[in-house]
Amino acid sequence: MKAEIIAVGTELLLGQIANTNAQIISNALQEIGIDVYFHTCVGDNQERLQSVLETGLRRSDIIVLTGGLGPTKDDLTKETVAACLNLSLKLDKYSLDKIKSYFAKRGRPFTENNYKQALVPEGAIAIENKKGTAPGILLNKDGKIIIMLPGPPREMEPMLRDEVIPYLSKMNSSTIFSKVLKFYGIGESALEEKLEDLISKQTNPTIAPLAKMGEVTIRLTAKAENRMAAEKIIKPVEDEIIKRVGKFLYGYDDDSVEDIVARLLAKFNKTIAIAESCTGGLMAHKLTNIPGISRFFERGVVSYSNRSKEDLLNVNPDTLEKFGAVSEETAKEMAQGIRISSGTDIGVSITGIAGPDGGTPTKPVGLVYIGYSDSNICFAEKHIFIGERADIKEQSVNSAFHLVRKMIQDLGD
Amino acid sequence: MKAEIIAVGTELLLGQIANTNAQIISNALQEIGIDVYFHTCVGDNQERLQSVLETGLRRSDIIVLTGGLGPTKDDLTKETVAACLNLSLKLDKYSLDKIKSYFAKRGRPFTENNYKQALVPEGAIAIENKKGTAPGILLNKDGKIIIMLPGPPREMEPMLRDEVIPYLSKMNSSTIFSKVLKFYGIGESALEEKLEDLISKQTNPTIAPLAKMGEVTIRLTAKAENRMAAEKIIKPVEDEIIKRVGKFLYGYDDDSVEDIVARLLAKFNKTIAIAESCTGGLMAHKLTNIPGISRFFERGVVSYSNRSKEDLLNVNPDTLEKFGAVSEETAKEMAQGIRISSGTDIGVSITGIAGPDGGTPTKPVGLVYIGYSDSNICFAEKHIFIGERADIKEQSVNSAFHLVRKMIQDLGD
Repeated sequence: MKAEIIAVGTELLLGQIANTNAQIISNALQEIGIDVYFHTCVGDNQERLQSVLETGLRRSDIIVLTGGLGPTKDDLTKETVAACLNLSLKLDKYSLDKIKSYFAKRGRPFTENNYKQALVPEGAIAIENKKGTAPGILLNKDGKIIIMLPGPPREMEPMLRDEVIPYLSKMNSSTIFSKVLKFYGIGESALEEKLEDLISKQTNPTIAPLAKMGEVTIRLTAKAENRMAAEKIIKPVEDEIIKRVGKFLYGYDDDSVEDIVARLLAKFNKTIAIAESCTGGLMAHKLTNIPGISRFFERGVVSYSNRSKEDLLNVNPDTLEKFGAVSEETAKEMAQGIRISSGTDIGVSITGIAGPDGGTPTKPVGLVYIGYSDSNICFAEKHIFIGERADIKEQSVNSAFHLVRKMIQDLGD
Repeated sequence: MKAEIIAVGTELLLGQIANTNAQIISNALQEIGIDVYFHTCVGDNQERLQSVLETGLRRSDIIVLTGGLGPTKDDLTKETVAACLNLSLKLDKYSLDKIKSYFAKRGRPFTENNYKQALVPEGAIAIENKKGTAPGILLNKDGKIIIMLPGPPREMEPMLRDEVIPYLSKMNSSTIFSKVLKFYGIGESALEEKLEDLISKQTNPTIAPLAKMGEVTIRLTAKAENRMAAEKIIKPVEDEIIKRVGKFLYGYDDDSVEDIVARLLAKFNKTIAIAESCTGGLMAHKLTNIPGISRFFERGVVSYSNRSKEDLLNVNPDTLEKFGAVSEETAKEMAQGIRISSGTDIGVSITGIAGPDGGTPTKPVGLVYIGYSDSNICFAEKHIFIGERADIKEQSVNSAFHLVRKMIQDLGD
């Protein structure tokens, strides 16, 4: 089956946002073996939307529209689809109740223009929006499937995952299955060299390396009649890759390094506390995105001032005076200090210069020390990261998680 | 003049990358007053590219293509444009020299397939690529302007900025200018009802409301001969909007609430410290994304355990025992505790249940208390947020920043 994606919204054409919905939807469709041949963005304009929709209906079996489902007058998606297909719009009572209760829960008044959001074309099914008010719509008419989803990705994504993909999977008989292998500690070109013969003769599965933030991933993608057959095609290639570069492998698919760390903490029943300076809480934030982490994460400290390093982490004022806040010595004392004061098994620390200001010739922007402490060992690693403030924070945290991951894995060995 | 953007590349349709080029180009075109009416992505397929291109030539004056200019067999953009317009491809000697020297500089062999990159349609101008090998192409034929740029953003962007935009500016005499007003504390539909008459008669400027994470923005967009004239068109509409709903206005354009808080801290010379429980460091992370914030942000504490609330924030164990960690009383003591221990002017705290587990009938997932303390006042706000763990963290932090913003603004009143 051939699909295309139509995003509706003038904000896309003004360049205010990128069309990330098209990427997310394309990805999800290709995983269930549906080919996407076109993406289109069109503004909140009925005439132009209608022309795009008519083209789509001629050339594709499935059309996924995003945006233009809200309560306002320039939200025109449903109206235009209904007009194109000669359908009338009817009030969906269940959706109206859901929208009303959404407003009630938030103590906000339900205004008249919200009725519009509960209208669906006759014969269509409304898809509940658990994150917002505008329901999605699924319409199967004259051999064409038309799916309308709201524009905000956080509303769109759960509806895509929970309703649309399961519905379309049933319609399509071949599967595309991907497996991602994640590596740390080896560069993209070095990895590619070791796998060159495999990559050059790839057909099914395809082998696609991708570098990002000091990590390299390899996506293996197989096409087969079902998932198990696809997995069987991937297996020998995966085994060969692991044979050659397995020592750099740290995870699969959506695993983030913090997921791996959380699993290792649980597996070895270890507790952790985090002391951050230049990363400003990002490491604690990432770790606490993981449900249930409160059993293993005791506390975090964002010691932005010298005084807070002394008060909360017991860093020696002489150390700060002699070596500075960004130094191996301070990183070590921070890691040791947070571990001892919190009574955890592991203490980890980050101190560095995230920029754009604050760099000196001997301590440039991007210089970061990552400290580690457990009951046996205390040390700090020196890094120099390149990029802007946000990149340096991100890379520092990523490296700190990888350091903790390796140390806990060694405990287990 | 009407423009559209066509991105060529199967990787876009597979969802491997988002079409950020379209966003960048749209933004640049609207700044010089060129309306973009469509974005299209199409794969590396000559037939489908040709159909998209023919549609574009019918409806637009300017077509900007990205991607498909490389040396490989599936790079088809130039070939397809030339075929559509009945033009032959000719070798551009200057571009060939540039490509050869690019390879020589990097010590890489110049392979035969690179000749293809130096071919341009007859009558076209090559645009030098300073970051890579494939030159861009600018073609003005039969009243249509066709621009071809390479796919990688780092190659595309300098060519767009240095060559394409100056070229198109000369052709176009009008400007589009947008101003965004940001509101908090009022819903999208309530805001729209108050502005309904303005919205229904909008022409120039246009008035576009958009809701996101408990905030609503209104974009005013004017078209005029230059920026000053556009600002003059926007002014009376903006004034009228502010007259009606100005008490909910908190910022403009790219302002985030944390940007506003950082500016207010600087303006009133106030220092802040943050105590977070369920948000796990996200508030400190967001605040420390702002360069120079170390002058006003003293410390953060992520007090995930009860013990850390007692140790670092001086929360009374009896309070925790009697009211629980997620309570108005604990939130107040956390805010007060962090302010006093850090010696800052302001202390803010967040404690709640981010889920998915840990909720009870009386304290459900999404229940969050936000505490505030300064030398005059100490109180806590109760919220119930809806969504997943990450949404609850995000909304909690957003509300905490808005609370701090309002309190500092009141100090100034």
